[in-house]
Amino acid sequence: MLAQDIAQKALLASTVLKTLTNEQRSQALENIYQGIKSLKQEILAANKLDCDAAQKNQLDGPLQKRLDLSRDGKFTDMLEGIRQVAALEDPIGKITLARQLDQGLDLYRVTCPVGVLLVIFELRPEVIANIASLAVKSGNAAILKGGRESLQTFQVLTQVITRALNGTEVPEGAVQLVNTREEVGSLLAQDRYIDLVIPRGSNALVRSIKENTKIPVLGHADGLCSAFVAEDANVAMAKRLLVDSKTDYPAACNAVETLLFEKSFAAKETVLAALAQAGVTLHLDPGLTTSSEFQAQYAGQIKQAVEEDFGTEFLSLDIAVKQVDSVEAAISHINQHSSKHTDLIITENEPLANKFLNAIDSAGVYWNCSTRFADGFRYGFGTEVGISTNKIHARGPMGLEGLVCYQYHMKGHGQIVSDFGEGKKAYIHKDIK
Amino acid sequence: MLAQDIAQKALLASTVLKTLTNEQRSQALENIYQGIKSLKQEILAANKLDCDAAQKNQLDGPLQKRLDLSRDGKFTDMLEGIRQVAALEDPIGKITLARQLDQGLDLYRVTCPVGVLLVIFELRPEVIANIASLAVKSGNAAILKGGRESLQTFQVLTQVITRALNGTEVPEGAVQLVNTREEVGSLLAQDRYIDLVIPRGSNALVRSIKENTKIPVLGHADGLCSAFVAEDANVAMAKRLLVDSKTDYPAACNAVETLLFEKSFAAKETVLAALAQAGVTLHLDPGLTTSSEFQAQYAGQIKQAVEEDFGTEFLSLDIAVKQVDSVEAAISHINQHSSKHTDLIITENEPLANKFLNAIDSAGVYWNCSTRFADGFRYGFGTEVGISTNKIHARGPMGLEGLVCYQYHMKGHGQIVSDFGEGKKAYIHKDIK
Repeated sequence: MLAQDIAQKALLASTVLKTLTNEQRSQALENIYQGIKSLKQEILAANKLDCDAAQKNQLDGPLQKRLDLSRDGKFTDMLEGIRQVAALEDPIGKITLARQLDQGLDLYRVTCPVGVLLVIFELRPEVIANIASLAVKSGNAAILKGGRESLQTFQVLTQVITRALNGTEVPEGAVQLVNTREEVGSLLAQDRYIDLVIPRGSNALVRSIKENTKIPVLGHADGLCSAFVAEDANVAMAKRLLVDSKTDYPAACNAVETLLFEKSFAAKETVLAALAQAGVTLHLDPGLTTSSEFQAQYAGQIKQAVEEDFGTEFLSLDIAVKQVDSVEAAISHINQHSSKHTDLIITENEPLANKFLNAIDSAGVYWNCSTRFADGFRYGFGTEVGISTNKIHARGPMGLEGLVCYQYHMKGHGQIVSDFGEGKKAYIHKDIK
Repeated sequence: MLAQDIAQKALLASTVLKTLTNEQRSQALENIYQGIKSLKQEILAANKLDCDAAQKNQLDGPLQKRLDLSRDGKFTDMLEGIRQVAALEDPIGKITLARQLDQGLDLYRVTCPVGVLLVIFELRPEVIANIASLAVKSGNAAILKGGRESLQTFQVLTQVITRALNGTEVPEGAVQLVNTREEVGSLLAQDRYIDLVIPRGSNALVRSIKENTKIPVLGHADGLCSAFVAEDANVAMAKRLLVDSKTDYPAACNAVETLLFEKSFAAKETVLAALAQAGVTLHLDPGLTTSSEFQAQYAGQIKQAVEEDFGTEFLSLDIAVKQVDSVEAAISHINQHSSKHTDLIITENEPLANKFLNAIDSAGVYWNCSTRFADGFRYGFGTEVGISTNKIHARGPMGLEGLVCYQYHMKGHGQIVSDFGEGKKAYIHKDIK
């Protein structure tokens, strides 16, 4: 099938899916759950073929792990995830504004699905079940495009999900799984039919998608998070927060990558030593001087920072460190360098913290807590569609609201605009409680 | 100045503007108001030069009118518009979610400006004051790029606004007016610094901008609105609604362009006659037959419709008419042909109306009222940034909320994520009232 036909089919399906009740959508998820559960052995057998091929092709160890559905309770988590999404509150049909314009002329703003999603993912085959569930629950049609590495798993899951949805009200074409023979590029060109692209994979994948489509892309390529330690910061707290933010999971997008000290903060070496003891390599800006004792003690973990370090998402136990003159300088540095993900101030001074919170132009701005909290589950959203560094629609960790927008419904009794105006009727504009 | 420098300057200014209070932002608007008011004669003199040049260059009559600031109380309206925007409720700093994650760890979702706007407009010079006001009020930096035709007016207004903002807290670079020597294309390439493009002008302008940028474009190119008359529609109401929707202002984006009759609706000719009597030319699909009397009476206003007519925004006293078998067929036709602006059902049957309201994938879906109500002022938004046919962020007529997004502020007391998990602390996730 051509990319345009796939996209058109999805658009048509989306307009039917949009009208189903929450019960109908959740029932479809239950069918997917049962289908996957009952074919566990077949799915794992197919997954084993993918894993064997990955081993043969000498894929990196961590990447092989991502492919493997039999590890660490992943299969059970995948199944439970479907039921959790089914149990979530219905995100669509919520009335967010109700206003009387005239006697018998009422305006409602109602949440609705965005329409058609294109989901592009790499290794993790559990994304298929996850995204299919999120899409159906939120009334969006989805086109899923997987990577070559998970082809066997993908094909079996495709059959299972398609069969599971056959017995439900969800129309054909609502969830289409597209195999690798289809070109990503031709799908990315369907901006007339596809409303949103959701990439689930590496920075390189996201960046390449953003470069190659006119469709809005929901997600993030980089997570370049910064922390600023103000003059009066509690030293013990600064150590704890920075070690957690940097080392809890260095490859995560919400790990800290840049550390800015206010020049007048006295305990810089104490904080840096805590990071070094946790295994972190310090990329120190030449403007920040350290004692010879410190240099001797951590010689193997000190590098001189270059300008690019302050634009680098290390994703490893590395951090770029700089001192700045003031909170204003920190704000300016962060607003120019950060990837608009999550940034942190450590201070005991509330007005200063509020200044930072209001001035930083990122999805998350934190005061005295780890950047690692930037996560949909930790925020209590029940599920995570992704973390957005976009400036419009949805920012930061997103639950289903990233897949939802709104439309206006107006209900009248024959009103026309030429009845209104000077010397004629006036608009009431009264909110309906 | 290079486009990149302009955009970078705007980004820096936006992060200062973002921190100003509502009073400071509104005071800046008052200064613009006073500045424009006191230089009325100079502004009108410059505008006269533009109008004379337009006449000399034989610009179309309606376009000349759009250029002319001295007509129809336009100058007063422009001035009053600034004060109206200043008086609006502050759109930023609103808390839309507050949640306790842990004792002393609180998450807030707070509305904030989008960041940097690029506004591109054609003839109407009053857009300068209007958009400068909307941007400053919502805490967004704006780059304004006008057309060649209004150059003289633009230059004087640039000086006035720049001088007016000099005496305020609004930073330099927050409102930059870029003259025609700068290329639009190079500004549209600054997707690293510019967050949103707002085009104010013809369909051709909007379409060309959408084709030439990766920055999200907020607005609409087309307004292809449709009306569906169901079997049981009240005939008198159908006549009134269609005549108003089509003829009240045919060049508007919310005028109806396509009329679909349910096959079993008996009074098709009565409704068509009302449109014809109001001066409308009917483009009738061959599947819709009319009596010979009807054909004779309105011979000059009947054309045979071709397929393209159902994808055409006429912007004139023309309408494409077709009959369909059912509401399902109408929904399918509209979802495939409409520009996602505003669509209408006329029926006395509430379940049928609700089916249509839920199934149509447009920013506005109306039941028994004129499509011409799709307008920010009529919705009671106090101002109108534009009408969006996008599927994400903001849809339909937009007040300031189109220029606003949100960010998360998290306030803690040293919490780290490795304190949470199995056998450790659990998240509280309790909404703060």
